[in-house]
Amino acid sequence: MEERLKSLWAEARELSLGTSSLVDRLELAPSSLRFLRDYVSANKPCIISSSATRHWPAISDALWSNDAYLRRTLASTTVSVHLTPHGRADSLVPLAGKGLCFASACVRAMPFPAALDLITSSGSPTSPVVAYAQQQNNCFHEEYSALASDVDPHIPWATEALGCFPDAVNLWIGNGRSETSFHKDHYENLYAVVTGEKHFLLFPPTELHRLYVRPYPAACYSSVSGLSPETGGLRLELEEPERLVPWCSVDPCPPTKEAMDQQMSAFPLYFQGPKPFQCTIKAGEILYLPSMWFHHVRQTPDDNGRTIAVNYWYDMQFDIKYAYFNLLSSIEFPPTSVTEPSEEKKNQEDCLHSSPSHVSDH
Amino acid sequence: MEERLKSLWAEARELSLGTSSLVDRLELAPSSLRFLRDYVSANKPCIISSSATRHWPAISDALWSNDAYLRRTLASTTVSVHLTPHGRADSLVPLAGKGLCFASACVRAMPFPAALDLITSSGSPTSPVVAYAQQQNNCFHEEYSALASDVDPHIPWATEALGCFPDAVNLWIGNGRSETSFHKDHYENLYAVVTGEKHFLLFPPTELHRLYVRPYPAACYSSVSGLSPETGGLRLELEEPERLVPWCSVDPCPPTKEAMDQQMSAFPLYFQGPKPFQCTIKAGEILYLPSMWFHHVRQTPDDNGRTIAVNYWYDMQFDIKYAYFNLLSSIEFPPTSVTEPSEEKKNQEDCLHSSPSHVSDH
Repeated sequence: MEERLKSLWAEARELSLGTSSLVDRLELAPSSLRFLRDYVSANKPCIISSSATRHWPAISDALWSNDAYLRRTLASTTVSVHLTPHGRADSLVPLAGKGLCFASACVRAMPFPAALDLITSSGSPTSPVVAYAQQQNNCFHEEYSALASDVDPHIPWATEALGCFPDAVNLWIGNGRSETSFHKDHYENLYAVVTGEKHFLLFPPTELHRLYVRPYPAACYSSVSGLSPETGGLRLELEEPERLVPWCSVDPCPPTKEAMDQQMSAFPLYFQGPKPFQCTIKAGEILYLPSMWFHHVRQTPDDNGRTIAVNYWYDMQFDIKYAYFNLLSSIEFPPTSVTEPSEEKKNQEDCLHSSPSHVSDH
Repeated sequence: MEERLKSLWAEARELSLGTSSLVDRLELAPSSLRFLRDYVSANKPCIISSSATRHWPAISDALWSNDAYLRRTLASTTVSVHLTPHGRADSLVPLAGKGLCFASACVRAMPFPAALDLITSSGSPTSPVVAYAQQQNNCFHEEYSALASDVDPHIPWATEALGCFPDAVNLWIGNGRSETSFHKDHYENLYAVVTGEKHFLLFPPTELHRLYVRPYPAACYSSVSGLSPETGGLRLELEEPERLVPWCSVDPCPPTKEAMDQQMSAFPLYFQGPKPFQCTIKAGEILYLPSMWFHHVRQTPDDNGRTIAVNYWYDMQFDIKYAYFNLLSSIEFPPTSVTEPSEEKKNQEDCLHSSPSHVSDH
């Protein structure tokens, strides 16, 4: 089966996606037909230059890099903020003595100005908490409606191509420490960066086995009684009853050389195979992130210490491609026992992943 | 693997293609965007009503049902005619003592009026030969250019959707005995029937294993020395050196009950699984036959004893769907030894397939 899967990976890249790790860049917004034919139907990502968003006041008037504007416009708005000790929410985190678990953030509702302060201050590497304003539930319309006229309510050529308006529009305000681990979404995603930069690693769905999707017990950060989560009083606890979440095992950017060596030995299909597609999306640019593509995201903040992005989730077509993907998912390769790091290694990894300031993890 | 493949078959139908054996019918020609989104990208067939072709003189003026018009317009044209003893070219035919082989027709160039006479007369079940004017090499432009203005040179909404003009346009003139065995093409196919009817059985590429693609030795009909092939002097001979052609083993319409029983016992995945998609394309209608779909075609002639169709082959996108299909093809299921009919059965089948008038097969 290994040779067959490797042929699939190579063939999809050679025939359609490209053999370099570069993503197509379009200087102008594509016509709906071209977007549909060359990218959506082919399930292939592309980057659209800032010419497509230069009429957005958020971009042209630099409204979202303007601290005073944001504070004034959202002065009385309550927003959801995700808190973690290290910036990794919805990702694998070691839980003392229990190996890796799938950790969700502690979600707190707070006034926008306080959220903005916390996001900015928690970008410092000494901060015991990292704040990330994001809520993937159409939060741009639910929480940030005061900013609605700053960007287009949808991406016109994508809406025409896909034959529907977005199902959800989400706003993301983070600092340089927030990181999103490899995962995929069941949406066609138009991801526009408004200020700062986002760095994506992308894998096509054909390469699913290279990410070693395995079940991990779900856990959640919550506030330690008597402490404020905003100042680092966070504790990670397993959900009860146990719930297993299938998640990508690979961490492409581990913090130390030793952790990298462990990753490379545990996940050879990732590190020895062809490189992920890689791109940086700058302010004003849009990434078309096709449905079912695995993506890992990091960010570089603007001068205010923040990266702000808005993404448009459109319904995907559950068609023959999706059925093929499910067949692929059903193939267990490589057998789990051969590739999982040993318990001893896992415990070492626990230590590597937890910095002294993150004692609340355990 | 059997359960995984069955899930794939079921899922593609349930999510996208439909669980009945009916093909979508569109009353009006679709917009290029809709055609691309709902059919090409989804790799899903549809039928477009005759409203899409009513401006074609071949249809509106019934030119191609007009014997005198065809004979006059093509009076001095030489065309390619495919001759077989039974109407099945590019299909599996028993060769005495050697089991089934993949038989190609004897191709003869002849003046169009003689070809038309032969096609018409060979529709009779007592004719020792069946003639089919067809040459899948852009023959409409190569051989039938005198008819060029009778139909559109391309299908405008398909051309716009697919972003290119057709690679080839082919004309097919046959009688009720011609039958095309299950196969697939690497093209997006717009198949317009101009007079008579075509009956299609269709399988999505996901169901490839249900057709039992196996290698068969190539053979070709040629004229017996001293006899005219037009009057039945045809002999089937294996190519030398041997050349193996992978071909679908299933004959969905065998001539006798006994032959059907043998088919059902040899190819249970075909006969026990969900029914093929099935449709009849009438004069003026167009079938969108998606790339990589397996199709089997029979025809009912018009009052002149002929079915005439023109099909437009557009380049397909060799994208992620194609890479998935190749992965699927690499899965050998069921193992050949279990399902192939025994040699004894094959020999019985030889007898069943050859009628007394077809002695030239052997």
